Amino acid sequence: MPARDTLSGVALDLGGTKLAAARIAQGEVVARAQVATRGSASAAEQVRDMHALARKVGLDSSDRVGLAVAGRVDAGGIWRAVNTETLSNLDDVDLRQLASEVFARFVTVLNDAQAATLAEFHFGSGQGSAAMAYVTVSTGVGGGFVIGGVPVRSPNGLAGHIGFSTSRLATRRCGSGRMGTVESVAAGRAIAAEARRMGYPVDDARDVFDAWRAGGEWAGQIIDSSAAAVAGMCADLAAILGIDRVVLGGGIGLAEGYAERIRHHLDAEPPLFRPQLVGAELGQDGVLLGALVQPDRSESDT
Amino acid sequence: MPARDTLSGVALDLGGTKLAAARIAQGEVVARAQVATRGSASAAEQVRDMHALARKVGLDSSDRVGLAVAGRVDAGGIWRAVNTETLSNLDDVDLRQLASEVFARFVTVLNDAQAATLAEFHFGSGQGSAAMAYVTVSTGVGGGFVIGGVPVRSPNGLAGHIGFSTSRLATRRCGSGRMGTVESVAAGRAIAAEARRMGYPVDDARDVFDAWRAGGEWAGQIIDSSAAAVAGMCADLAAILGIDRVVLGGGIGLAEGYAERIRHHLDAEPPLFRPQLVGAELGQDGVLLGALVQPDRSESDT
Repeated sequence: MPARDTLSGVALDLGGTKLAAARIAQGEVVARAQVATRGSASAAEQVRDMHALARKVGLDSSDRVGLAVAGRVDAGGIWRAVNTETLSNLDDVDLRQLASEVFARFVTVLNDAQAATLAEFHFGSGQGSAAMAYVTVSTGVGGGFVIGGVPVRSPNGLAGHIGFSTSRLATRRCGSGRMGTVESVAAGRAIAAEARRMGYPVDDARDVFDAWRAGGEWAGQIIDSSAAAVAGMCADLAAILGIDRVVLGGGIGLAEGYAERIRHHLDAEPPLFRPQLVGAELGQDGVLLGALVQPDRSESDT
Repeated sequence: MPARDTLSGVALDLGGTKLAAARIAQGEVVARAQVATRGSASAAEQVRDMHALARKVGLDSSDRVGLAVAGRVDAGGIWRAVNTETLSNLDDVDLRQLASEVFARFVTVLNDAQAATLAEFHFGSGQGSAAMAYVTVSTGVGGGFVIGGVPVRSPNGLAGHIGFSTSRLATRRCGSGRMGTVESVAAGRAIAAEARRMGYPVDDARDVFDAWRAGGEWAGQIIDSSAAAVAGMCADLAAILGIDRVVLGGGIGLAEGYAERIRHHLDAEPPLFRPQLVGAELGQDGVLLGALVQPDRSESDT
């Protein structure tokens, strides 16, 4: 169990919409920088962007560097897009090796949702849970698990891509290519797309939430479908993995009123399939902190 | 990694329809006995039935005894029904303690699907897999996982109850109380119920399979819905856990032609969500052999 104040270095978080860098000293963010994600950039270009941003937060040759990225990172460090709507131009590159070359040191790499999972488990609202899932509802839907104190990771790096499991409420295909996924109905991208299909020219999910708060019934329905799909997924995770606590994160997950809608739908499930739902405590910093939690596997690889 | 020829003792398998006992010597079944399950018996009565059956296969005071049971067994050995259509009268008893008293020795206990998972991973068609799911389609639908060589178990004993996850093809409630579960459309019980709703007075799923083989289109449709729900679940397990091999067991799972129907539906999934599908090698003996694989947790409890 790492202590938070042992975390120091530079962490990078490459998500679907933004690339963030932070300098972390004794577990606290002391400098940060951010740019928009270039979704169609190659892996090599993404890593150069990361390096440039790391320099903006004062990257030093003695800093530990940890990367957390959208997409799938397998046990060998190979990085692949899962949802091509998020990152369209990855080329199955060895991200660990590439980043270690560009940063001129050993760089640890992991999936962004898995990073947040580790951080919430060790330092946030997952502390002490017997079987925890982290669920992020943001541009996409992702997550991770810690069961009996042990992070659940699959050798192919796909474990935790829960947004690509199916939902009884979904009728569309998402960027993974699967039909009827949770992501296709619950994610920010899906919320905005549904609003547009209904004739409301929104920019993104934020506009739909604003409309909901202003009393727009159509917006409430879209958001309720998203929350219901997430509730069903939480109950599925209880059945499949015995999850008894869900830590909810992401811009949509933490939006005012959203968790209440999930709880409403969870209440319709039998008690055994109704994990406790709590908000993530670390916000976006969870991904950054988690990127510096030394993963067991990479440690043994060094 | 246990060697099969180190397994010796008496194993018991309490399923939804039958209670089986086997004497196992150096990993081979050398005697067996079977009776029908008394679904409404209490836990204490079930254990007395097990003891009586164990004596029929020559239970000896020096024998190791392992129990594998339908339902949920938590980390403390407490046994609870999940699907009340299978076992209706359990009373949250400490099964490990109760069985250890009745058998007058330390008895190991685990869920039946988890026992089969261990056996298929160590001795059957799961050998060498990086991220395996065992999926049994029988009276109910259950399973288990071994990821990176490590069995996935949750402290509450629910992990692996995959039949109670939801399916886009399901519209009914199953015995877990959840709506729209895989079990409610794919299990043998569901197959027979659907046939009866269509006006065919079948005894069980076997009759539906017979009708399918005799050319009954209605029967083919019911079986195809079951297989499609299992295929969707396999793809969901790929997304959630990175499962890359599914070992298919159970009377329906291993019925002629059934795996082909699952493969047909899996072929419609994107390649990343299409785990390899192989048949279980150990049949019903998987549960019995797995019951004697010394579980890590119980070992540390002794």
